[in-house]
Amino acid sequence: LVSKLPDVGTSIFSVMSQLAAEYGAINLAQGFPDYDPPQVLSGALARHATTPGHQQYAPMPGLPRLREQISRKTALLYGVPAPDPDTEITVTSGATEALYAVLAAVVRPGDEVLVLEPAYDLYGPAIRLQGGVPVYVPLCPPGFRPDWDLVAAALTPRTRLVLLNSPHNPSGAVLTAADLRTLGQLLEHSATLVLSDEVYEHMVFDGQSHRSALQEPLLAERSFVLSSFGKTYHATGWKVGYCLAPPLLTAEVRRVHQFVTFAVSTPTQHALADVLPDAELYTSLPGFYQRKRDLFADLLRDSRFELLPAQGAYFQLARYAQISRQDDVTFAQWLTREVGVAVVPVSAFYHDRQDHGLVRFCFAKRDETLRAAAARLRNL
Amino acid sequence: LVSKLPDVGTSIFSVMSQLAAEYGAINLAQGFPDYDPPQVLSGALARHATTPGHQQYAPMPGLPRLREQISRKTALLYGVPAPDPDTEITVTSGATEALYAVLAAVVRPGDEVLVLEPAYDLYGPAIRLQGGVPVYVPLCPPGFRPDWDLVAAALTPRTRLVLLNSPHNPSGAVLTAADLRTLGQLLEHSATLVLSDEVYEHMVFDGQSHRSALQEPLLAERSFVLSSFGKTYHATGWKVGYCLAPPLLTAEVRRVHQFVTFAVSTPTQHALADVLPDAELYTSLPGFYQRKRDLFADLLRDSRFELLPAQGAYFQLARYAQISRQDDVTFAQWLTREVGVAVVPVSAFYHDRQDHGLVRFCFAKRDETLRAAAARLRNL
Ligand SMILES: CSCCC(=O)C(=O)O
Ligand SMILES: CSCCC(=O)C(=O)O
Repeated sequence: LVSKLPDVGTSIFSVMSQLAAEYGAINLAQGFPDYDPPQVLSGALARHATTPGHQQYAPMPGLPRLREQISRKTALLYGVPAPDPDTEITVTSGATEALYAVLAAVVRPGDEVLVLEPAYDLYGPAIRLQGGVPVYVPLCPPGFRPDWDLVAAALTPRTRLVLLNSPHNPSGAVLTAADLRTLGQLLEHSATLVLSDEVYEHMVFDGQSHRSALQEPLLAERSFVLSSFGKTYHATGWKVGYCLAPPLLTAEVRRVHQFVTFAVSTPTQHALADVLPDAELYTSLPGFYQRKRDLFADLLRDSRFELLPAQGAYFQLARYAQISRQDDVTFAQWLTREVGVAVVPVSAFYHDRQDHGLVRFCFAKRDETLRAAAARLRNL
Repeated sequence: LVSKLPDVGTSIFSVMSQLAAEYGAINLAQGFPDYDPPQVLSGALARHATTPGHQQYAPMPGLPRLREQISRKTALLYGVPAPDPDTEITVTSGATEALYAVLAAVVRPGDEVLVLEPAYDLYGPAIRLQGGVPVYVPLCPPGFRPDWDLVAAALTPRTRLVLLNSPHNPSGAVLTAADLRTLGQLLEHSATLVLSDEVYEHMVFDGQSHRSALQEPLLAERSFVLSSFGKTYHATGWKVGYCLAPPLLTAEVRRVHQFVTFAVSTPTQHALADVLPDAELYTSLPGFYQRKRDLFADLLRDSRFELLPAQGAYFQLARYAQISRQDDVTFAQWLTREVGVAVVPVSAFYHDRQDHGLVRFCFAKRDETLRAAAARLRNL
């Protein structure tokens, strides 16, 4: 059997979580909280798990009552027209499936897909599985802001899709209204589509706020916008996300979605529909995570890690040049095994595994976890 | 936007369920029970939904304790060596995702995939999304048994994969040990792989029993075997299935799975792991469903539907020539709208929508539902 993805190994997130488990390290690698969802949400799942009639297939595009809540929330949050639940919203098995389904739906052999790099590790392989050609445009440290001239230069008539991710994993960089406008103008007379991965939409700090591709009319008309309940509700293991897109784009996503997973857990969708109207659950997140970011930075202030700015998401990048001259993979392994703190080497976010001497910490952890990790990291 | 699947509409199962809802018809179309999972299972999900630490990402291949239970059950049930949980078992978002992931992992542009038809409607589009070429071999009514000479004649050096489905949807036909042996011999000196969709493994009637591709050594070494907890536990809305395959094949499925959904609901996997050791929950199924099949047949004995043999799965095919000369789609719509019983037109299982004058009833319904439906069907 000749592999279709011969150069693709196990995702770095699995590798580091397994290594962390093996060595009993504190896991600041894979992005997930070590606390639980709000009780009102877990309670809702427990209730729906035992509700007669809630255990069979949900409709393929998602439970109607969940799509209605998503529609309302979107309009409220972004001041945009409410997306039509029937034709513009698709519930998926996490944002991962939404990403995959969008790529499978629109990328054809030979199509170019523009990826701002560093980027989430599934983008490249998923594009190549469709026969597409990823075209990488660098985001440069420390700010990881897109250089729109580079983007403009990389666009060709073959560019099928531009992938955006704001707040950005792994850097936390956040796109501005001006960024979105600029890209909208670049694409205005083209047939190029946009996939905007906004799973960290509720984690933007320092009084800034997330700008959605939905808010830029030149982008909204050509964008698939992805979100994730796992990130927003501290429930990464529940695997429910969604895709917002205009009707013609949604129709294509659904054609694929119905064959990729067909539908998403019914009791879980009911539980989410119950809590979605409670805005406090997500409006509290910027404060909640900013405190964690600041706590972690405070704890590492006297360390030899050099922390990069972190404007959003729940990750902190750090330079370790003062501690070690090792490449980032070797350093991350050493940190996991010998120091007892697992991190992600940032080279994993580059298709050519470019080493920038950076590692990524996930700070979506209880304060005591962050303290325990910092105690180990401070003395290096 | 030019569609990659221009000829693919909404899956017939969604279409008919929606029509049933619209007209308040009894839904015997889409395959799902109208009863709930065993209480011990729902209770387990309710418990795990509120268990601290069970709400974040499961490991990508599946929860270890669930994979161990799957391994044990498989060895016990089929008298085969226990599959290695680490290298031979992958938990997926329903058997649907397993099917999709296998096709995406092994089918390359130009590869032929042999499909015995009638067949589940996702096979064709999912093959074509990979650039593969479905090659259809007919199963003929009333028995829907494979003609292995036709299969042999359809195999070419380009045949990448043969799709099996036993017990068969929609006909209920069951492959025998001799069938599996014959196919094993046909493939023995080839590089052709097998995808064996065995989601109805626990529903075989009249004292026969399911033969798994795992039990035929010539097939086991080249097969992806799929199963579904949704079917076995009356929980189609939970969306958990799995794929068994030798290590080299499993490695390829996982490469894709990690990008398609990454992982499956953690609390749901815990709940399933809790109940899997209770063999009574699945050994009771043949009796349970045979009774339903027989009840439904009894109820329709004096009707003008001609029932075909139904050896397995939870579907009953019926000829309606004595009632109407309409094509099966028109008849199914009429039955839904005017008679109040939704069914699936069997032409939906043919790539060219060939009409055999057959409709499919799902008998995974409470006795009173079957009675109510039959009362409407009997007088036609
Ligand atoms: C699906 S595992 C990866 C979780 C994550 O988003 C990350 O760690 O970046
Ligand atoms: C995923 S919906 C289809 C359910 C089913 O297996 C069937 O009705 O054949």
